[in-house]
Amino acid sequence: MIPKQKEAAMKKPADERNILMIAASEQDANLYYATRFTAPDPFIFFQIRGKKTLLMSDLEVDRARKQSCADEVLSTSALAKAFRDKNGRRPSYVELVADFLKARKVRHVTVPGNFSIEYADPLRAKGFKIDYAGDPFFPERTVKSPQEVRAIENAIGHVETAFAAAVSVLRKSVIKKGKVYFKGTLVTSEFLKKIVNVSLMENDCIASHTIIACGKHAVDPHDQGSGPIYANQSIIMDIFPRDSHSRYFADFTRTVVKGKASPKLKKMYAAVKNGQDIAFRMLKEGADAGEAHAAIHKSFEAQGFKTGVLNGRMQGFFHGTGHGLGLDIHEMPRVSAVKEIMKAGHVVTVEPGLYYADAGGVRLEDVVVITKTGCRNLTKAPKFLEIP
Amino acid sequence: MIPKQKEAAMKKPADERNILMIAASEQDANLYYATRFTAPDPFIFFQIRGKKTLLMSDLEVDRARKQSCADEVLSTSALAKAFRDKNGRRPSYVELVADFLKARKVRHVTVPGNFSIEYADPLRAKGFKIDYAGDPFFPERTVKSPQEVRAIENAIGHVETAFAAAVSVLRKSVIKKGKVYFKGTLVTSEFLKKIVNVSLMENDCIASHTIIACGKHAVDPHDQGSGPIYANQSIIMDIFPRDSHSRYFADFTRTVVKGKASPKLKKMYAAVKNGQDIAFRMLKEGADAGEAHAAIHKSFEAQGFKTGVLNGRMQGFFHGTGHGLGLDIHEMPRVSAVKEIMKAGHVVTVEPGLYYADAGGVRLEDVVVITKTGCRNLTKAPKFLEIP
Repeated sequence: MIPKQKEAAMKKPADERNILMIAASEQDANLYYATRFTAPDPFIFFQIRGKKTLLMSDLEVDRARKQSCADEVLSTSALAKAFRDKNGRRPSYVELVADFLKARKVRHVTVPGNFSIEYADPLRAKGFKIDYAGDPFFPERTVKSPQEVRAIENAIGHVETAFAAAVSVLRKSVIKKGKVYFKGTLVTSEFLKKIVNVSLMENDCIASHTIIACGKHAVDPHDQGSGPIYANQSIIMDIFPRDSHSRYFADFTRTVVKGKASPKLKKMYAAVKNGQDIAFRMLKEGADAGEAHAAIHKSFEAQGFKTGVLNGRMQGFFHGTGHGLGLDIHEMPRVSAVKEIMKAGHVVTVEPGLYYADAGGVRLEDVVVITKTGCRNLTKAPKFLEIP
Repeated sequence: MIPKQKEAAMKKPADERNILMIAASEQDANLYYATRFTAPDPFIFFQIRGKKTLLMSDLEVDRARKQSCADEVLSTSALAKAFRDKNGRRPSYVELVADFLKARKVRHVTVPGNFSIEYADPLRAKGFKIDYAGDPFFPERTVKSPQEVRAIENAIGHVETAFAAAVSVLRKSVIKKGKVYFKGTLVTSEFLKKIVNVSLMENDCIASHTIIACGKHAVDPHDQGSGPIYANQSIIMDIFPRDSHSRYFADFTRTVVKGKASPKLKKMYAAVKNGQDIAFRMLKEGADAGEAHAAIHKSFEAQGFKTGVLNGRMQGFFHGTGHGLGLDIHEMPRVSAVKEIMKAGHVVTVEPGLYYADAGGVRLEDVVVITKTGCRNLTKAPKFLEIP
């Protein structure tokens, strides 16, 4: 579980920038990270000379004072009233921001790369200097505290429970004419997703897009899957909910077959599992994640698993090996074709895959935390291909 | 259920603008609306002389060709290779956009208000003219088709099922020393939220932040609620999931009391219900929603329910009457203090509320579709305050 916000926020290194963010923290992980406050509508955040100030609507001002880690929470309607008393008219949203910055004698702010043009343009027109910084906007966000690692590990545990429920259904199912039946009902992607998603919800984990893709659907890595589960074909289960208590994500993939896997599928599975092991051996503080990604590619090629367009579609291993995981499902750092030096405390997925139209798809995904000497796997669920 | 995308897209009026969007359609409803394609990572969308083009990563290119309503789906890696063959180096993401626009002889694009500064600045530095348009970026998005209305109505139906499950628990519960017990277990906000959220998930509706707030929690409109449910105190249930099939939202609020409501709470409930009726009578094509909001305020004041800061916190009716509902939980048009002329096909919530620290909170929310002669209520669930 995440520690109380005020303590966590105080431990962060000093930030010399004067920062402005305007976003809905429900969607914007940087803003949530800076405030530890969740709101569905946009609000205004300043960090000026290290002090955090929120400008909140009447609807949120009291809750923000209670729940956020800001040093100061001001009411936009009180500021708007002061503006009107002075200028005889209502201020625009941007005028509220401009007035506040002027009062604090700030003419230059740094914003995140996703800062909206509809705020940037009018502020610049008023003479403010705005520069932006890409992700990681807060570099310290990539280095997880032990509490953050525990939050992710906890969410993964709930996914493992949900995965076990789906496996249990497949184990108790029977095969008839190539299809799979559980207590007389045809097993579909939709049916298994519901079992997984309801199990997650019972543990307060919210899954938006669980992938349970069988056969030809599994050959497209982001196909969510639909229709019947077929016997003897690969089923990719990629489950990535947000824990609604901690707001941290889990990310987890296993590939199974109900019945018997083909020799090619078995070889693909072994290659992908070995690909993960390559990354587990290489990833540690100071290592270049790009080299781990390249080594997996090389290993696949050496085993005859080529990547590229074949019969008009991408086949082979055509996605990254992994990505940072935390308050966003995809965040920095990446484990991909790009150079990226690992630090202790980085939490990344390791999820190589192979996809061929004539055999199916295989992907395996664990989450690791980087340490000084290697990495520690936070995912405990066993890996097996066939379910009898 | 939503119609197939290509047909829906073709019915839209011609758009003279050349449009650029770069976003993750999973989070960005305008981009989803324009493409009918859901992706978790940012991709590039152009609409040039009415033709829609997507630039997609290898991971998504095949799925986008199958599922999106774009006229053309190009592979960023193929474009990047062409750039490298010509220039001897890899292009940046923005260079891909710039090259594409140059090839199509476009120097001026319109972007949505939330377009990112990290794309706008470098494109402008390359000489492109970028102007932005605020919401509604696609004005036709505010006017729902009959299929869209049915999708919202369908999602509301699932919420009503979930609400009924929570009410059933309260009905079967007993009161002991001011607290509420169901089959011997203490009933809490968390317990009721789980019942609601699991019921929603069984119908493939994803609830991120169900509010079940009792007593002092109910006095803060966005407090999600926690801890025991108390007898004889108001319980606000605000349930707003996304239907994962249609991607449309429902939004629904009821206020109940387990046991007996105080006279003040009963009076507040009657005032809020009457406030809804005021809006139902006033909202129709051509009406100003701002006048409905003002009329509700006036009615509350006339009954002695004042709004403002009392004992250091906002009390009374200090939020909007409603908001547009669709692919976003909060979208245009608003029913608030601002002038907003209603059109047939607008779908808005009607959710006045009253909040007093000495009595509790009351909010009732239905969803209506505006018609030429009035409005039609899409919410069917009964309104009752006390649960014996």
